[in-house]
Amino acid sequence: MRSLISILELSVEELDQLISTAKDIIAHPENYWDKCAHKKLATLFYEPSTRTRLSFEAAMLELGGTVLGFSEAGSSSAAKGESVADTAKMISCYADIAAMRHPKEGAPYVAAQAASIPFINAGDGGHNHPTQTLADLLTISREMGRLDNLTIGLCGDLKYGRTVHSLIEAMSRYTGIKFVLISPKELQIPGFVRFNVLERHSIPYTEVTSLEEAMPQLDVLYMTRIQRERFDDPWDYERLKDSYILDTPKMALAKEKMCVLHPLPRVNEISVQVDNDPRAAYFRQALNGKYMRMALILKLLEEAKENPVKDEIDTTDLEYDRVCHNPKCISQTEQELPQISRVTDKAANIHRCIYCEKRT
Amino acid sequence: MRSLISILELSVEELDQLISTAKDIIAHPENYWDKCAHKKLATLFYEPSTRTRLSFEAAMLELGGTVLGFSEAGSSSAAKGESVADTAKMISCYADIAAMRHPKEGAPYVAAQAASIPFINAGDGGHNHPTQTLADLLTISREMGRLDNLTIGLCGDLKYGRTVHSLIEAMSRYTGIKFVLISPKELQIPGFVRFNVLERHSIPYTEVTSLEEAMPQLDVLYMTRIQRERFDDPWDYERLKDSYILDTPKMALAKEKMCVLHPLPRVNEISVQVDNDPRAAYFRQALNGKYMRMALILKLLEEAKENPVKDEIDTTDLEYDRVCHNPKCISQTEQELPQISRVTDKAANIHRCIYCEKRT
Amino acid sequence: MRSLISILELSVEELDQLISTAKDIIAHPENYWDKCAHKKLATLFYEPSTRTRLSFEAAMLELGGTVLGFSEAGSSSAAKGESVADTAKMISCYADIAAMRHPKEGAPYVAAQAASIPFINAGDGGHNHPTQTLADLLTISREMGRLDNLTIGLCGDLKYGRTVHSLIEAMSRYTGIKFVLISPKELQIPGFVRFNVLERHSIPYTEVTSLEEAMPQLDVLYMTRIQRERFDDPWDYERLKDSYILDTPKMALAKEKMCVLHPLPRVNEISVQVDNDPRAAYFRQALNGKYMRMALILKLLEEAKENPVKDEIDTTDLEYDRVCHNPKCISQTEQELPQISRVTDKAANIHRCIYCEKRT
Repeated sequence: MRSLISILELSVEELDQLISTAKDIIAHPENYWDKCAHKKLATLFYEPSTRTRLSFEAAMLELGGTVLGFSEAGSSSAAKGESVADTAKMISCYADIAAMRHPKEGAPYVAAQAASIPFINAGDGGHNHPTQTLADLLTISREMGRLDNLTIGLCGDLKYGRTVHSLIEAMSRYTGIKFVLISPKELQIPGFVRFNVLERHSIPYTEVTSLEEAMPQLDVLYMTRIQRERFDDPWDYERLKDSYILDTPKMALAKEKMCVLHPLPRVNEISVQVDNDPRAAYFRQALNGKYMRMALILKLLEEAKENPVKDEIDTTDLEYDRVCHNPKCISQTEQELPQISRVTDKAANIHRCIYCEKRT
Repeated sequence: MRSLISILELSVEELDQLISTAKDIIAHPENYWDKCAHKKLATLFYEPSTRTRLSFEAAMLELGGTVLGFSEAGSSSAAKGESVADTAKMISCYADIAAMRHPKEGAPYVAAQAASIPFINAGDGGHNHPTQTLADLLTISREMGRLDNLTIGLCGDLKYGRTVHSLIEAMSRYTGIKFVLISPKELQIPGFVRFNVLERHSIPYTEVTSLEEAMPQLDVLYMTRIQRERFDDPWDYERLKDSYILDTPKMALAKEKMCVLHPLPRVNEISVQVDNDPRAAYFRQALNGKYMRMALILKLLEEAKENPVKDEIDTTDLEYDRVCHNPKCISQTEQELPQISRVTDKAANIHRCIYCEKRT
Repeated sequence: MRSLISILELSVEELDQLISTAKDIIAHPENYWDKCAHKKLATLFYEPSTRTRLSFEAAMLELGGTVLGFSEAGSSSAAKGESVADTAKMISCYADIAAMRHPKEGAPYVAAQAASIPFINAGDGGHNHPTQTLADLLTISREMGRLDNLTIGLCGDLKYGRTVHSLIEAMSRYTGIKFVLISPKELQIPGFVRFNVLERHSIPYTEVTSLEEAMPQLDVLYMTRIQRERFDDPWDYERLKDSYILDTPKMALAKEKMCVLHPLPRVNEISVQVDNDPRAAYFRQALNGKYMRMALILKLLEEAKENPVKDEIDTTDLEYDRVCHNPKCISQTEQELPQISRVTDKAANIHRCIYCEKRT
């Protein structure tokens, strides 16, 4: 039995298998109507995220299963100070599989360790959101007919956008991928993506500040929102923001065969005019998210049935003498949680918290 | 495929058909246990309304369908500033039909335009609440055995009570209907009901300030709450309020064969003593609401199956040059929503916002 | 038809029957998959309690039924000032059985009187929480193989801990039970338990302040949390708290065959180290709670089917001239609720409110 905390836990083969399962569900939904009969999904949302929660719930219901849970911490025992691990043990009594959204980075990892059922990370702070990436992959595959030999533009907040980081990590494992990183200087991709992913696997990429300029060469454009709060100087935001808003004039510069993705919800970074453009794939992307979650739930329940024993955690290079200083890490609040790091790069002597993966 | 935003979108024939379906459900519930198998209802409640939400959810469950959604904006993406139209497009990926409650007038109309599934208005501010009126109609039909030749008393806040306005509009289409409008001067029915409905269709009505006085002639008494906030001078409220509270002495003045309705929740406008009076129909009314929602869900899903293409909106007499100034109108907040009015009365040169129906 | 408001409404025979049903469910879950097909459970939680709510919902889902309701008063009509009785009448239109959690003592009793479906008290303030006690009983029965001839230690806040009071009341009806009451002087059991239960039925008990001292003789240890708020002088709390925290050294003093219970959620009163001790039964206790709720739902629905008429309330020794002064009593807020007391002890001239059972 295993959980899904990070997209990198899935091999390319497994990703391809999930995608083909999703496509089979789309082709023959009635074949899946009873696959999860008598199974329960718990949706444990410590912060609201309607789209992700409803996508998981719709997925389970379309598999013939049922759903229970909570949609915000306020109506959960967390209000009484219960630890994430205890909630995970508790929910293991009431459900067969769980999806957890939590503001603290690493919370779903801690839950998965304590639980006796598979846990799916439905977003932990700015850290991971693997099922969003699954939705992105199916969308690219369905829109473009392939996952290799693509020029992928990533636009907006590349510094803090976790969906962008996960997509780069996932796509980097396919062949013939080029990235065009479109953002203001202030919001370029962080070092751990640049060096650990792009440089290490020598993936070709260019960095530009102009969306117009990048538009003509893109097979895929992944839009994200630029938030005012990210700028020290509000004037920089005002100066920049419009140039990263996708509208019909900018779409006119793009290839005839390409697709626009967005994790949603969008605020104003994509003009409503663009919605009717056949290349606007962001609402089909939401639909694809449901199908990939169906495929994932089936896979994890199947694995749990074949092997109810939890997979051991990899204990190589663990260290118990370092403290994580990331204020958003679950280790800051979880009761009696040991501080554990892992050496991720001996040469460079880099240690990372096993919960939030920040350097310690 | 169509949605239900206002009760007037249903013809008298359709109302009669919904009522007979509801009566058949009451007689043979088991025949409907699987009618909505594998169908999902989304309950999108941007403000709490337990009774309406649970009535919709019970209705869908008794049809063998399932339910997902949210019960307040706080736990929805609206908190992240997502537009109503985007939420409608999103939920179209996850459900087969939706019921929306929203504080902004016209929000369900905007949602229905954007969605690819039928939307039911479960109350939009002070504007419409058609399924409440459906409950009222079935209740009158079951309690009195007919929907024509009735003297209907409407008591309390007739100025702001949207359920009163809708009931007048709906009943005005049946023959032999008389209205007795019972309210303090401050809370008499507004002009658009008086002139557009009563006067235009020359429906006989009288206006009185005394409930006792009206009691003896009524076949139906529809009670509503008078809220302190409605009065400029609190003393007027104190002076008036008791005379609009229904109690056993007032019931003693009524016909032996009549019925008392109330949209509920009631606070103190009907004394608990009255609950045991066989003429007190307001709790049976809540039950009837469930059956009419079952009938409506069946009808809209049936129509959507026969004709998946959305009905075109009527474009006659539309105007794009007028701004709606109603602060509660969805057009005040919805992203990139065009301002559109319709000429509803050429002679009087009256233009109304297509979303909230207020004059522009 | 009847409801369950207090554990004492169940005879020892009925408790044994519920326990054997629960054990049969555990042995043959598939036999119960459709027992509640087409039945609906309403979970009416006026204050959050994830564990209890999810336990009820999981129970109903595993019986093939469905669930609807609310998880906090904010998203309920209570916000509009609806009475508990009206909500109970309303929900009787939408569900077949209901579980109610309410901060006011006696609220579920009032609801049960108004409803036409069985109501289960899921916790009313500091008053009753019978299904927690059902979980405790099944856990003791499964862990120790019996419910008689046991030495039961109760540790922590025995003054305000309603689960402790209910467990003492329930276990007092079995033979050969000894209690060891472990608490600081400030938090000893209240008089109504000491005199009405222990003394009256001459149950042997000892009172100690040291957990270590008590440990060796216990067959069952029931832990509860000590809250800082309970102490006038915070220093007393600081001085005491650690001595009532269960850790591995204290477990080393216990019998090899014994079990530790806790109603959960636990904060820090049981160290996480203890979780792996085979005698730590508190997470299995959560699981047992689900099975007992399944057994209870089956029993109450069965009784309602055999006899749809509500059981009459016992009218002996009722008094209508006394006012309840308990600020947490539902009679303080419920609309038009008559003040009723019952003489519970003629000799001592003791009168108790029929809602909250406090002296009047």
